[in-house]
Amino acid sequence: MPSERSIAIDAQLVERYILELGAIGAHSGTGVWRTVYSPEWVTAAAQYETWAVEAGLEARRDAVGNVWAKLPGSESGKAIVSGSHIDTQKPGGRYDGALGALAALIALKALREQFGMPRRTLEAVALCEEEGSRFPTAGFWGSRAIVGRINPGDPNHIKGYDGETIAEAMRAVGLDPDRAAEACRDDIEAFVELHIEQGPVLEHAGVPVAIVDAITGIRHTEVKLTGEQNHAGAFPMDLRRDPMAGFAEITSGLIDHAHRLGRPAVTTIGRCTPYPNAPAVVPQSVTFTIDARHPDLEKRRALYATHEALIKEVAARRGLGVEMRTLFDHEPSLSAPELLRVLGEAAAEQNIRTLTMASGAGHDSQQMAEIAKVAMIFVRSKDGRSHTPEEFSSIEDIVLGVRLLAEGLYKLAYA
Amino acid sequence: MPSERSIAIDAQLVERYILELGAIGAHSGTGVWRTVYSPEWVTAAAQYETWAVEAGLEARRDAVGNVWAKLPGSESGKAIVSGSHIDTQKPGGRYDGALGALAALIALKALREQFGMPRRTLEAVALCEEEGSRFPTAGFWGSRAIVGRINPGDPNHIKGYDGETIAEAMRAVGLDPDRAAEACRDDIEAFVELHIEQGPVLEHAGVPVAIVDAITGIRHTEVKLTGEQNHAGAFPMDLRRDPMAGFAEITSGLIDHAHRLGRPAVTTIGRCTPYPNAPAVVPQSVTFTIDARHPDLEKRRALYATHEALIKEVAARRGLGVEMRTLFDHEPSLSAPELLRVLGEAAAEQNIRTLTMASGAGHDSQQMAEIAKVAMIFVRSKDGRSHTPEEFSSIEDIVLGVRLLAEGLYKLAYA
Repeated sequence: MPSERSIAIDAQLVERYILELGAIGAHSGTGVWRTVYSPEWVTAAAQYETWAVEAGLEARRDAVGNVWAKLPGSESGKAIVSGSHIDTQKPGGRYDGALGALAALIALKALREQFGMPRRTLEAVALCEEEGSRFPTAGFWGSRAIVGRINPGDPNHIKGYDGETIAEAMRAVGLDPDRAAEACRDDIEAFVELHIEQGPVLEHAGVPVAIVDAITGIRHTEVKLTGEQNHAGAFPMDLRRDPMAGFAEITSGLIDHAHRLGRPAVTTIGRCTPYPNAPAVVPQSVTFTIDARHPDLEKRRALYATHEALIKEVAARRGLGVEMRTLFDHEPSLSAPELLRVLGEAAAEQNIRTLTMASGAGHDSQQMAEIAKVAMIFVRSKDGRSHTPEEFSSIEDIVLGVRLLAEGLYKLAYA
Repeated sequence: MPSERSIAIDAQLVERYILELGAIGAHSGTGVWRTVYSPEWVTAAAQYETWAVEAGLEARRDAVGNVWAKLPGSESGKAIVSGSHIDTQKPGGRYDGALGALAALIALKALREQFGMPRRTLEAVALCEEEGSRFPTAGFWGSRAIVGRINPGDPNHIKGYDGETIAEAMRAVGLDPDRAAEACRDDIEAFVELHIEQGPVLEHAGVPVAIVDAITGIRHTEVKLTGEQNHAGAFPMDLRRDPMAGFAEITSGLIDHAHRLGRPAVTTIGRCTPYPNAPAVVPQSVTFTIDARHPDLEKRRALYATHEALIKEVAARRGLGVEMRTLFDHEPSLSAPELLRVLGEAAAEQNIRTLTMASGAGHDSQQMAEIAKVAMIFVRSKDGRSHTPEEFSSIEDIVLGVRLLAEGLYKLAYA
């Protein structure tokens, strides 16, 4: 049932913030290169803080450099938080991460201007190093700090692509790595993250905005098939033990299986290394990775069991050795039913067309789920593109997403 | 019908020659590392020359360093030649190439000692740089020189793995690269090459020796399949254009097709390079090579046509771009029916069990076929191994092979 209340979101302000933040670290036309603790990141964090203060919010940095903007509530109790990260890929675009940090700021600004002080404390946050684009093993650094998943030894052990430690990089921007644990929070009730979809589901469905009910579970498995290296000319087909033949059969099997399961199951073989990788040699071995994802715990288990059974069956039948190694395995992160209900009601009342979907990509929300109820809002991505300067979402879609976020936050913090 | 004549082959001499030549450049236990124009090659060529002189043959080097050992005939006319190469892989074994050069020497020695001067001139030859292991584009260098396939500019243009030109390497061992064309011969009637099989066909058949009726035709094709690079999590299976899926289907199809055709058809996918080759990315492209061989001209054409049709069909159905590039294409080289008949009769008369097969690997005989009738004799390889220190053929099998060679040469030059 449409509501009489409608929170006004200033489309021009949204566009200005996106372009001005995107100009900090601008790269390759519409791209952005803004890695954590770089001069560009320092400038962007300061800009975010400036805008927060302009919006009448209480700004502060935490011990790892996340920028917080607070609209204090009249009641005590845990905070309602929204935000995302402002670090990027090398280069990424203007939207991945940045849009969620700005959306939170714009929503809080609009709520304060249109409704005054909330009942519950609201906070916007600009997180850091979600991408792991400067420190490959430090993905979700900002949100991990908030949920207490940084160990005391981490800052001195985590190294960047250029060889420096994250502790050195922190010191260079005035942060004390020994105090990283102080970023930890235990007073957050809910975290609602707006993000671009990074996929084509909304575009194909012709819908501007999605409510995300889960972040998919993901497992990376490395498989090595070993056969017998032989001369490509002198060895008859019927006497070969060819790991490339096994690899091809397994790859087709895994991909076809995901197709048959249908959305949201996905299986990707993105990496493959034959040895010795020579045109005239039947390979000794083929090593490849499987990226397999499903947001449903039970279906995910079944997916992986099917994979293992197929790999073992093909290897045994073809006389190939097989080694399997799980590189990582992240359980699905389910959105809080209460937040899904609130966002669903807000969308219905505001007449915002949404669909409900799982996120196939990882997000800071997964980390925040350790200490808070979480949910996400997705905004339609042009051609499903992300991690590229070409990523794009229209201002119309973005405004709908920000309005849905603001309506949800209103229900959580004012109603 | 068994013959009363039987040429005695001295097994101890055979073994001594193999071990002494294998000791020059000995590497990794039973391996040999003896690249063309290296100090080891110089020593080996000199040793071959010494043995030739000891055997009562007229020894000489030609303009590229091939070592010739001549047993002049009483009649004029073109020569009957046998031999193979004495350069090796890095490391190779004691048998690939070297065995054929030694077999020719031993056969001529036995013929001279047991039957005196032949009617037709006989020659043994130790060829150089068949493998292309020092100069990758100079494979079959020695036999190419003999048949006139070295262009005047080649020596200064062909570079080794270490950056030096083959002209520089020739000068370093006292050869004048400007005179390479002088190695050219137009007075060879027949070339019979003994070689290890390098495959498991004889071993599986339980037969010591083969008569080779053809060297297979071979084509290397590079195929690039291009799809759409996407996020492995955010892009549903049904919207992907995944070149890895196309690659897997094509690879299975090509390999299965060769299996169904049966021997001697072979198809190998030995090299595969996805881009960007990252676990969480649906690849942009997969580039791979196809090594496909068949000794029959018509079946070979059909094999390649089937490959192209399958690749195009899969690419079109999956919405993938496809680029195909022929890296090289060598026609099959057929053995001369007359030589096959002579060797077949010799085997029958000497009660040597043989089978007739095509060679799946390339050999100097392919080059020699430009100017002479050719045929080959294969000796059983343990486990079908070659291009490795582990390659091995038993002295019993080798003596049978050398005896068959000597009997064949007798028929061609004495009878």
